[in-house]
Amino acid sequence: MASIRDVAKQAGVGVGTVSRALNGTGYVSTDTKKKIEKAARKLGYTPNELARNLYRNRTGIVGVMVPDLDHPFFSCLAKHIEMELYRQGYKTMICNTIGISDREKDYLDMLDRNMVDGIITGAHSLDGEEYLKRKKPIVSIDREFGPGIPLIGSDHAMGGRMAAELLVKNGCRKVLQVSGVAPGVAAQERHSVFKQVMQEQGVELLDMVMDWNVFDWNAHYEGMEKFLGRHPDIDGVFGGDMAAIACMNAVLQKGIRVPEEVKIIGFDGMDVTRMVYPRLTAVRQNVQLLAELCVNTLLDLVEERKGVPHRQILDVEMQFGGTTL
Amino acid sequence: MASIRDVAKQAGVGVGTVSRALNGTGYVSTDTKKKIEKAARKLGYTPNELARNLYRNRTGIVGVMVPDLDHPFFSCLAKHIEMELYRQGYKTMICNTIGISDREKDYLDMLDRNMVDGIITGAHSLDGEEYLKRKKPIVSIDREFGPGIPLIGSDHAMGGRMAAELLVKNGCRKVLQVSGVAPGVAAQERHSVFKQVMQEQGVELLDMVMDWNVFDWNAHYEGMEKFLGRHPDIDGVFGGDMAAIACMNAVLQKGIRVPEEVKIIGFDGMDVTRMVYPRLTAVRQNVQLLAELCVNTLLDLVEERKGVPHRQILDVEMQFGGTTL
Repeated sequence: MASIRDVAKQAGVGVGTVSRALNGTGYVSTDTKKKIEKAARKLGYTPNELARNLYRNRTGIVGVMVPDLDHPFFSCLAKHIEMELYRQGYKTMICNTIGISDREKDYLDMLDRNMVDGIITGAHSLDGEEYLKRKKPIVSIDREFGPGIPLIGSDHAMGGRMAAELLVKNGCRKVLQVSGVAPGVAAQERHSVFKQVMQEQGVELLDMVMDWNVFDWNAHYEGMEKFLGRHPDIDGVFGGDMAAIACMNAVLQKGIRVPEEVKIIGFDGMDVTRMVYPRLTAVRQNVQLLAELCVNTLLDLVEERKGVPHRQILDVEMQFGGTTL
Repeated sequence: MASIRDVAKQAGVGVGTVSRALNGTGYVSTDTKKKIEKAARKLGYTPNELARNLYRNRTGIVGVMVPDLDHPFFSCLAKHIEMELYRQGYKTMICNTIGISDREKDYLDMLDRNMVDGIITGAHSLDGEEYLKRKKPIVSIDREFGPGIPLIGSDHAMGGRMAAELLVKNGCRKVLQVSGVAPGVAAQERHSVFKQVMQEQGVELLDMVMDWNVFDWNAHYEGMEKFLGRHPDIDGVFGGDMAAIACMNAVLQKGIRVPEEVKIIGFDGMDVTRMVYPRLTAVRQNVQLLAELCVNTLLDLVEERKGVPHRQILDVEMQFGGTTL
């Protein structure tokens, strides 16, 4: 394989000039650049990215941590993050933390070992201290770490209020809320606001708390079946898309009609809510915009631009389906 | 930050010894190793992965290319590939090719630029020649490239036969097959075998060919709605999970009963087939095993082990749901 020395020789310039030209790290005249590019093409020279990165102490790689890549919200988020990073010239390293804090720590360690230029985290198993002690850029989705780690997320409180008000308007009097998010995560707010509205309206509220790192479909479905056995008279449900769909299936399985007898609202509003019949009414997060903001904020830090906002909260909207009136 | 020289000084040994000990690249006595590890811990020394990789000409990173990370099959596949790579000490770089051959080429180029040690590809937009000319390890899912690139996939022919025979047994007489896979990909076989069985059995077969890089839910649903407008009398459907679910929704929307009037069978058998009601009967791929085989085969090549099989085909199984009798 041709080396940088071969290119320099072929172009009749010094190795330093070739390096400056190909890396864009210093002035080289247009004529010389053309000569160098021609020589590089002729010799089939491909720069060794490892050597180039060592020189820059940059990898051009961003780490993305999600709890479960096979969960509809996180697969959609990861897709759009990768597409935006690619558009801006970065590659995406992906990690399923699957609720294991050691895995989360392992990926954070890559920051110190110069394997990634920054990390976007949607994983929440590991203690916040582990995040705060890192010196390289981190952006957090939905979890407040404190100064130095910008937070980007949806307006969960607004979503909880919208869902509660719609169920009340639909005449629900005994409502189930399926929660199950990590402690200290913004998503908790949707559950506390939901609860508050229900109390204000005098609606009976039952809470079902799932293990917050369980994204398994069967666990959701079986949990719902058991719950319905004990409380067959609920008339409204609010939970994440998967919990809401599991509930809908368990309800339909019992011959109960949706939405006539039970109203159901999901949260996230991913494609899967449009695959079930009837379509699920859901509070929709703008995942694409969330992904783009995460990438732009992280790259502002990586590329040391000024004025990076600490907190960016996105509006949510109600996607009306056939599971509410 | 402490350097390798600081560690050597603190431990009272040479820099070469520290390098051998921490990289495991040569003999160092147990006592000396302990001294070095203690010194490294005391000084908070973290090796610069970039420098270490330059020395080894390895990155410890594997690239994974899928057409769409938000498609249920590929998100599940990517999840299990990442988990298996992690278990074996490798990191995962992910790429959505979203049907754009330039993106596929860009990621392949990372092989030549030493950014990844190998690539697992489930993307099929780019010409085979582009793959064959690479010198570093590549493993392909479902697409036959020829010598040098091991193929791993499910037995699509078997799946097509199983689906066809079940629809025939269910008494179907006018069947729709939704196909739409890239040319030259093994998944085509399930459609040709399905067609062959239908012809042998004298069952009328209609074909609906989707753009093979379209994974968009709305495109599927709208396509199905139009098709049903023209052919309201079909009594059986076979297609990928998403196509089958789209069809089920469009059918239910028209007030047609499933499975009494129309029988539906999907292919892949992902979680989403258990979220719809009734549950979708589907030919199930063993995605976890597929992911593990991809990783093991690629790492056999990366770590230069002998006897790597060129073709590994996995059995599929019928997952019975409520959309067939």
